[in-house]
Amino acid sequence: MASESYNAVSLIRKKRDGEVLTTDEISFLVEQYTADVLPDYQMSAFLMAAYFNTLNSEEASALTHAMLHSGRVLDLSDIPGKKVDKHSTGGVGDKLSLILAPIVASYDVPVPMISGRGLGHTGGTLDKMESIPGFTVDISLERYRKILSRCKMVMAGQTEDIAPADKRLYALRDVTATVESIPLIAGSIMSKKLAEGIDALVLDVKFGSGAFMKTHDDAQKLAETLVAIGEDFGKETVAYLTNMNQPLGYKVGNWLEVEESMEALQGDGPEDVMEVTHTLAGTMITLGGKAETVEEGIEKSKEAVQNGQAFEKWLQLTKEQGGDIEVLKDFDKYSTAEHRFEFKAAESGTISDIDAYSVGMSSLELGAGRKTKDDVIDPAAGITLKHKVGDKIKKGETLAVGFTNKKKTIETAKDILDAAFVIDDTDVGQQQMVTHRVDKDGIHKISNNSDINCNITKIT
Amino acid sequence: MASESYNAVSLIRKKRDGEVLTTDEISFLVEQYTADVLPDYQMSAFLMAAYFNTLNSEEASALTHAMLHSGRVLDLSDIPGKKVDKHSTGGVGDKLSLILAPIVASYDVPVPMISGRGLGHTGGTLDKMESIPGFTVDISLERYRKILSRCKMVMAGQTEDIAPADKRLYALRDVTATVESIPLIAGSIMSKKLAEGIDALVLDVKFGSGAFMKTHDDAQKLAETLVAIGEDFGKETVAYLTNMNQPLGYKVGNWLEVEESMEALQGDGPEDVMEVTHTLAGTMITLGGKAETVEEGIEKSKEAVQNGQAFEKWLQLTKEQGGDIEVLKDFDKYSTAEHRFEFKAAESGTISDIDAYSVGMSSLELGAGRKTKDDVIDPAAGITLKHKVGDKIKKGETLAVGFTNKKKTIETAKDILDAAFVIDDTDVGQQQMVTHRVDKDGIHKISNNSDINCNITKIT
Repeated sequence: MASESYNAVSLIRKKRDGEVLTTDEISFLVEQYTADVLPDYQMSAFLMAAYFNTLNSEEASALTHAMLHSGRVLDLSDIPGKKVDKHSTGGVGDKLSLILAPIVASYDVPVPMISGRGLGHTGGTLDKMESIPGFTVDISLERYRKILSRCKMVMAGQTEDIAPADKRLYALRDVTATVESIPLIAGSIMSKKLAEGIDALVLDVKFGSGAFMKTHDDAQKLAETLVAIGEDFGKETVAYLTNMNQPLGYKVGNWLEVEESMEALQGDGPEDVMEVTHTLAGTMITLGGKAETVEEGIEKSKEAVQNGQAFEKWLQLTKEQGGDIEVLKDFDKYSTAEHRFEFKAAESGTISDIDAYSVGMSSLELGAGRKTKDDVIDPAAGITLKHKVGDKIKKGETLAVGFTNKKKTIETAKDILDAAFVIDDTDVGQQQMVTHRVDKDGIHKISNNSDINCNITKIT
Repeated sequence: MASESYNAVSLIRKKRDGEVLTTDEISFLVEQYTADVLPDYQMSAFLMAAYFNTLNSEEASALTHAMLHSGRVLDLSDIPGKKVDKHSTGGVGDKLSLILAPIVASYDVPVPMISGRGLGHTGGTLDKMESIPGFTVDISLERYRKILSRCKMVMAGQTEDIAPADKRLYALRDVTATVESIPLIAGSIMSKKLAEGIDALVLDVKFGSGAFMKTHDDAQKLAETLVAIGEDFGKETVAYLTNMNQPLGYKVGNWLEVEESMEALQGDGPEDVMEVTHTLAGTMITLGGKAETVEEGIEKSKEAVQNGQAFEKWLQLTKEQGGDIEVLKDFDKYSTAEHRFEFKAAESGTISDIDAYSVGMSSLELGAGRKTKDDVIDPAAGITLKHKVGDKIKKGETLAVGFTNKKKTIETAKDILDAAFVIDDTDVGQQQMVTHRVDKDGIHKISNNSDINCNITKIT
């Protein structure tokens, strides 16, 4: 607890006037708020002042610390190995967790992954897992530890006692237009991740039309803030800036993304998905002490796919968490959606843009996502793209296939898709997926995978 | 009521992003807040966004309109004459209402004055009135109209049904560090003044160390916003920027300020007090249609003091509102404070500054003000200055005399006074009290009273 008592109005005024709050002052605000002493209206005024005048890295760390310690912090030190997790700021078609976690775990680097559910246009890892029949993410802490020990990975939902202050603050930000603040976003992410008991963290910070951060600049600022907080807590933290100007891979929707992940684990993943996966997984393997350099880590990541050990790891985990592995081996055994429709090109040309947000919203319309927290997800609903940006297509050619159990959603979903595709003769060139790495030494441009290596210090 | 329904978060975001809200959108926020639909935490986030991105004059007018119509708006059209009131942003020793209202009313220009109580370092007109034995400001609306008809002036407290939305918003701003926003201040002032049923308004916007607006620039911005709102409501509105770098006049404290006002009404007022009084009163007389030019109005204001008609008017009002007029004629009949102390100069030199805020706080300490809303005021407590800025004084000379019924406050009050006086050899020159007039034609510099005239259009 903050040792001193402060006047809340003075602290709001201080931030309003552009001054820097001390760690104790930030702790006071969060603690008093969590204890129901500081009212919502003072916290929302503070958050809006912080939106305008931002928080510096010390303030962001103090906020993270206060939110982290508002709840339970897992101690996984009895489980051998350097625990490494990944967090993504989220994007449409982002199924990377399902591919990279088994790759990394297959090298005995423990991956204690606590994920969230989807809301709005982006899906949630938990929802994807649960589309596998029988797979449960609601597990006790005891079982969580057991699975992690045995399997070197585990995928679970966030419990109520993880960073409760963040939950309350996030709910308040959501209704007061104070979500879009980089230090507040960073504090929210890091307080939850640090509560997992990790030793190191890799962050996938997406930029582009389908990402939360629309611009590369904002993504860079967020990455720098996240890395600064992680390092401040003594956790080696590496972030990559990755492109989210079109959906990641071809499949969008819960079960559809599981399908694409299984294809990827068996060597048949889309190029964009694999570029990001191997970069992140290779870095995690390196941080976990199983490779000397990120290049070596990336090579190991590729090997784990080629030799089947990653897919085996995934099947092992699925069994541990109650899932049906037969459907993963043979997709035909999965009970697919009742209705299927094709979305065709209205003209010939080159696809110069596929707006990821719109594809996400179209998939949501078909039943793959939640408009409100209480909506029930249809695991089989979603969209499979047949073409991506840069492809030359002819009028009448199928651009996407939609799946749903609610027939009446099809027309709306098609209309949304129609707005997503831009077909003209703009040459967009090759889209580089991973553009920069941000670590404690700063930002490094990545021109191709060969110069990805870095100064990542091994954790000793 | 706003005809449409809006999403509160979108409106907060709109203001946060620097956009301009429509009149309907502002009305929606105020009406929903007053109706307890919009929660405090959304309003405080909006207010903080408005603090940072300000409100333009249309938004300020819309806010004023919504707050004004949240309660009762008096209709005084059955009372003959152009009703003119004055509002001051408040300062230490500001007793001008007590002097100018009877001057103006003595020319049959009705002055329907609704005032507030003091909080903190500045006194409130109501508290000053109530220091006159028997004087009551809590009067029914019926009696209010009767006194105004008969006396051409009335002095009352704000009732609960005047601009209730402003009351709630002000209370919220007070605890969320969102008080210091010029359009929010202007909306708060104007919603209350317009509810009085006035035809025209003169504003005394003070600047300087003892004023709410510390800088001349801020005072000018506030004056411009106030005038724009007033004109938008079809009320002729004139503002003066006046100096508040030292207390106004010599006496600070409720009864003490009544004393000085009675002296002023009988031709013995301090120069600074009279300069501002005659400027404001002369303008009110002109706006009320009883003078062709402000110069003529000022001459009439001076005459009303010289020929005793203003003092007679005050005595008439005092009788109407139940006050004892004997003490006003002979101050010795007033039961003064039990303790009296002299504050003496620690060195010889010229007084280059008397910090008005500190004098106000010292007087408050002696019992003249409220630290919290529930404090009871001692009408006899206060401070009489013996010297003002520019005076040459000798070590040991009395600078001020203090009055209190709480002996134990004397030492603290002296310490505060000690910090208020700056004695050195800086030549501060003559302090001009009224520096600018702001009206619908813009801002006009006033170099001395002779060029005060203006384009004030008579209300027809």
